[in-house]
Amino acid sequence: MAKAIIAVDLGGTQLRAARFDQDLTLLQRESTLTRADLGPKHTIDEMQAFIRKVMPCDRGDVVGIGISSPGPLNPATGVIIAPPNLPGWRNVPLSDIITSEFALPVYVGNDANVAALAEASKGAAQGCRHVVYLTVSTGIGSGVISDGKLVTGRAGLAAELGHIPILIDGGEVTSIELEAAGPAIARRCRVQLEAGVKSAVLELVAGDLHAIDAKVVGAAAARGDSLAVECLAHAGHMIGLGIVTALLLYNPEIIVVGGGVTKTGELLFAPMRQAVQAHILDSAFTDGLRIEPAALGDDVALVGAAALAATKGGRRDISELDHIF
Amino acid sequence: MAKAIIAVDLGGTQLRAARFDQDLTLLQRESTLTRADLGPKHTIDEMQAFIRKVMPCDRGDVVGIGISSPGPLNPATGVIIAPPNLPGWRNVPLSDIITSEFALPVYVGNDANVAALAEASKGAAQGCRHVVYLTVSTGIGSGVISDGKLVTGRAGLAAELGHIPILIDGGEVTSIELEAAGPAIARRCRVQLEAGVKSAVLELVAGDLHAIDAKVVGAAAARGDSLAVECLAHAGHMIGLGIVTALLLYNPEIIVVGGGVTKTGELLFAPMRQAVQAHILDSAFTDGLRIEPAALGDDVALVGAAALAATKGGRRDISELDHIF
Repeated sequence: MAKAIIAVDLGGTQLRAARFDQDLTLLQRESTLTRADLGPKHTIDEMQAFIRKVMPCDRGDVVGIGISSPGPLNPATGVIIAPPNLPGWRNVPLSDIITSEFALPVYVGNDANVAALAEASKGAAQGCRHVVYLTVSTGIGSGVISDGKLVTGRAGLAAELGHIPILIDGGEVTSIELEAAGPAIARRCRVQLEAGVKSAVLELVAGDLHAIDAKVVGAAAARGDSLAVECLAHAGHMIGLGIVTALLLYNPEIIVVGGGVTKTGELLFAPMRQAVQAHILDSAFTDGLRIEPAALGDDVALVGAAALAATKGGRRDISELDHIF
Repeated sequence: MAKAIIAVDLGGTQLRAARFDQDLTLLQRESTLTRADLGPKHTIDEMQAFIRKVMPCDRGDVVGIGISSPGPLNPATGVIIAPPNLPGWRNVPLSDIITSEFALPVYVGNDANVAALAEASKGAAQGCRHVVYLTVSTGIGSGVISDGKLVTGRAGLAAELGHIPILIDGGEVTSIELEAAGPAIARRCRVQLEAGVKSAVLELVAGDLHAIDAKVVGAAAARGDSLAVECLAHAGHMIGLGIVTALLLYNPEIIVVGGGVTKTGELLFAPMRQAVQAHILDSAFTDGLRIEPAALGDDVALVGAAALAATKGGRRDISELDHIF
């Protein structure tokens, strides 16, 4: 009997649900804009309506519902704690609510961990057992697969590579996210422009410094603008230092880097790889290592949510995905 | 039938072997000084002689031989790569050599990982499933248990917390080990004395700056010497930042800190805990967290080597230790 999995992507801007088959092939998808401003009840009602739409006629075929959500959340209890981009969500027992509605096992995971599972199951890290996934957009999130299993930690809070403390000049503590995420790239560019540095970025935003974002910087860098190139190089360097930490702590076989900022390509990846080579303790950590862009696009959260359900919340080994049902 | 485990501690200064019962209780121990200067063959001959001494009459009772060794090493192949404090050891296939001599399963692990297993099995972290172990002595090593299993990574090189890049002053990158291990504490003290800072340390070494080590600094700090106290506080602060990284990446329930430098007690632990509180992303990472000194003394490597064999090289869950045979 063919089995089905229901996947939900609760994002800050989009709400999506999909049905997958047991090989994690997407069969049906529904999506809408998340009306976060209307509060959790409205969003959960919509989520339930979407789940019903993608549900097969025979619920007995469904092995579970996987949900990708912004953190912080507790994957053991399925409680969404207080995501910054879901205003009004405070200790929402999402797993309990969905379980009581559909009488199916529900697994909730934070979006970066779920994306790591997705890339390891169907993406750039398929077939790998030791995977570090990084996403660089408005923030920096990460997820880790160690020996085939998702690393969650005691309360599901692992692995927050974006927030590790890096000390800079004079003892000030910063983090990779504060130095290399999209807003940091834009801020660095803005500060230099205010200091009088010449750059094509100024023309791209018609002189409006507030309109600068990482996308604009990326566009200017692609045309060879030296300030924009330097801003991306700084971000790449800092992400590279974060990757060094990830290599030392997890000794993975692959680093997958996703998120909007990675659309800048080699302008980000080249300085990133350089920083890794320059600062790694020993070449044993980088021998045979692959540092690659994420392979899954917008569906990464849905694929990951399906993989989360298939691995029973990441507790089963990803190698079992092929013969799990 | 009662089972036995043979444990070997190949240290830079001591070579030890012991027999444990299936409850990881030490039954017999032999030890000698490691004559590293005589090369690997001599040391391995002595190791084999010691293993014979602690071996029970009936080898059928022995489930395996666990060996704690300085890294870098490959636990999958049992090859000792090139430990700085074992001169002459270069790609020594220790596991194969011992296996062919005794026809028993042999498991080799790096000393910090093995110590983590020991503290999780019989020490300060007994009963815990998410453990980070740090040892602070002439270097800083670490080992991690995630959801009951030793984190080794692709080639057994995880988890090197001491070497993560954490401080960048004017672009220079340093590490926790370079800032907080014993030699760093001594160096910091020496530099201050050379700059004319008054301190009781100078009397303790009778004016010989080269005689300063972390032990001397600890002794002066215990008497309230302000320079010595500051040197330990700086080390504690940097280790605290490393612990923040470990909390963010592994979300453990306990941090166990061992090694000679921790004999300085609260002079190191208080600034360490302060740094953790000051720099952690969210109190969810520290709620209920325990930061504790290691509980096992000199036998930590032997207990860990026995646990390594009992868990088949760390591949089995530590919770199975109670009913593993």
